[in-house]
Amino acid sequence: VPTLAWTGCGLRIIDQRLLPGREKYLDCDTVRDLATAIRGLAVRGAPAIGISAAYGAVLAAMESEEGPSFRESALAGIETLASTRPTAVNLFKALDEQRRILQASASRAEAIAALLASACAMRQSDLEASMAMGAAGASLLGDDARILTHCNAGGLATAGLGTALAVAYESHRLGRLSRVFADETRPLLQGARLTAWELTRAGIPVTVMPDSAAATVLAAGLVQAVFVGADRIASNGDVANKVGTFPLAIAARHFGVPFYVVAPLSTFDPCCADGSAIPVEQRGRDELDSLRGRRIVPASADVFNPAFDVTPSDLVTALICERGLLRKPFDRAIAELTRQT
Amino acid sequence: VPTLAWTGCGLRIIDQRLLPGREKYLDCDTVRDLATAIRGLAVRGAPAIGISAAYGAVLAAMESEEGPSFRESALAGIETLASTRPTAVNLFKALDEQRRILQASASRAEAIAALLASACAMRQSDLEASMAMGAAGASLLGDDARILTHCNAGGLATAGLGTALAVAYESHRLGRLSRVFADETRPLLQGARLTAWELTRAGIPVTVMPDSAAATVLAAGLVQAVFVGADRIASNGDVANKVGTFPLAIAARHFGVPFYVVAPLSTFDPCCADGSAIPVEQRGRDELDSLRGRRIVPASADVFNPAFDVTPSDLVTALICERGLLRKPFDRAIAELTRQT
Repeated sequence: VPTLAWTGCGLRIIDQRLLPGREKYLDCDTVRDLATAIRGLAVRGAPAIGISAAYGAVLAAMESEEGPSFRESALAGIETLASTRPTAVNLFKALDEQRRILQASASRAEAIAALLASACAMRQSDLEASMAMGAAGASLLGDDARILTHCNAGGLATAGLGTALAVAYESHRLGRLSRVFADETRPLLQGARLTAWELTRAGIPVTVMPDSAAATVLAAGLVQAVFVGADRIASNGDVANKVGTFPLAIAARHFGVPFYVVAPLSTFDPCCADGSAIPVEQRGRDELDSLRGRRIVPASADVFNPAFDVTPSDLVTALICERGLLRKPFDRAIAELTRQT
Repeated sequence: VPTLAWTGCGLRIIDQRLLPGREKYLDCDTVRDLATAIRGLAVRGAPAIGISAAYGAVLAAMESEEGPSFRESALAGIETLASTRPTAVNLFKALDEQRRILQASASRAEAIAALLASACAMRQSDLEASMAMGAAGASLLGDDARILTHCNAGGLATAGLGTALAVAYESHRLGRLSRVFADETRPLLQGARLTAWELTRAGIPVTVMPDSAAATVLAAGLVQAVFVGADRIASNGDVANKVGTFPLAIAARHFGVPFYVVAPLSTFDPCCADGSAIPVEQRGRDELDSLRGRRIVPASADVFNPAFDVTPSDLVTALICERGLLRKPFDRAIAELTRQT
């Protein structure tokens, strides 16, 4: 999936707002363009946001003037990138790393080279992580597997094969996947537009449904497991992910269907003790109150449009990262993992 | 709410597909027009469908030729109306009653008069039922009440004040309602378009949200109860209602929030022992796969678009009908009630 690519003078991304109708690429050659693209969801998905921002730090250094103040100028660009979206921790971790590299660089030229090497390494690491997560998740599934997913946790959300969808791709490669049920994912329809686009491109049968029909699918025993991605995972295993993940986890528990969260270590946040510490982005009413120019919510009605919700860890069967499965108690498993890294 | 009115030569309905943008009225002066309006959801909501069809039987009689075959001709019109939508039992009960009246009529003129009187009586009865249900439901709420609802179970779904929303109107009249949270209700957005339109017209504060944000609202303790309508209630209390009701009931149970189903006796079906006997309408992919002409689901992806789901009675705190509250065990409470009627 052609999610993002460094062109030498900037980051080329596929404009995810236009899929599946148009495959249009955006060249983000300035920090400002890239920040606008991240804020406007032209590129989205926690790992993809983190890697994009890492490349954005390269742009920030490229935009700085040669001389003693290059660091301050580049740091300001990094701050702009950090202010784009609040929930995905990958963004902050990637920029923290780039800030460290910038501080350690003796010159602007050295900074640009080191930041680019770092962004490329993050990209490569994400690609490898997605393959490892795919293998770990696929090992949970038998033949003729049918799974359910929410939003887009695929190649478009990462630099590789995705998180939750990496499991689908690997199961499909092994000849064991028969179908993916994809929540359409209101309000921005990442499931209908992006997940279905990716999976049909890969020849994987996919059924798109309203988010509220997932309970009917679970009740009918049509899927063996639910796999979703994450935007931030707290130390106790609480999971911030696209709004709708929490009710899906509640329904999966109700029907005894395993509920797996697939995310690389870059999505784990040791600074958040639990989900209550994760900031949840509130988005504008325009995403809900009109459909392509036609008003659907009366102007005098209020709108509640949180981008994410926080699923308590007790509803999660297991977390899947590039090191494999994490089982309960999650706090201990996560602490052990972060000690190792 | 100007849902439906008999004009003397037909049924005038507000075209609910165009709300809230346009208040346009459709004059359905033939069985064919009315059947098209019901099938196309210009008029929807179980009680409103039943009453509309009852008036449609008048049109069927009006369209028949004077003479010995008037009954057969009118019966064919009634069959057309019965084939419009499968789930709301109000449709079939209203038409059964009209069929009985038609059979008992000695002449075409007598049939028309008797069918019209019957349709008007159903309309009046629905209006009174909505007031009784509103009072019964409001008695469950204290001051500063905040409730959550799904789809549109308001005046637009009935000939009166609605079912679930009758509770809101009555609480508001008593000065005890502070806010209604309304699921937008994908795919046809009856919550965003219709519920918000009705409530804001009545001066009731309403917050519209994606269906998948309801769990966040429940988790935060923002509402004291959930009130929904129904399209058919089986003898054991299982409830068919707009898709999304079932996951909402599961979430309400998870958070310990009372979950009330509000429906007149015309929605109870003694012929269905439980929810598995209720036919669930499957609707076309066009409702999901495009937004005002723009494709959002790739053509090669499948679509699952059930109009309803069936909530098992164990997730329902109480049923509210015009006779008051029905508590568990529902099978006994419902049997007692249907014996009385």
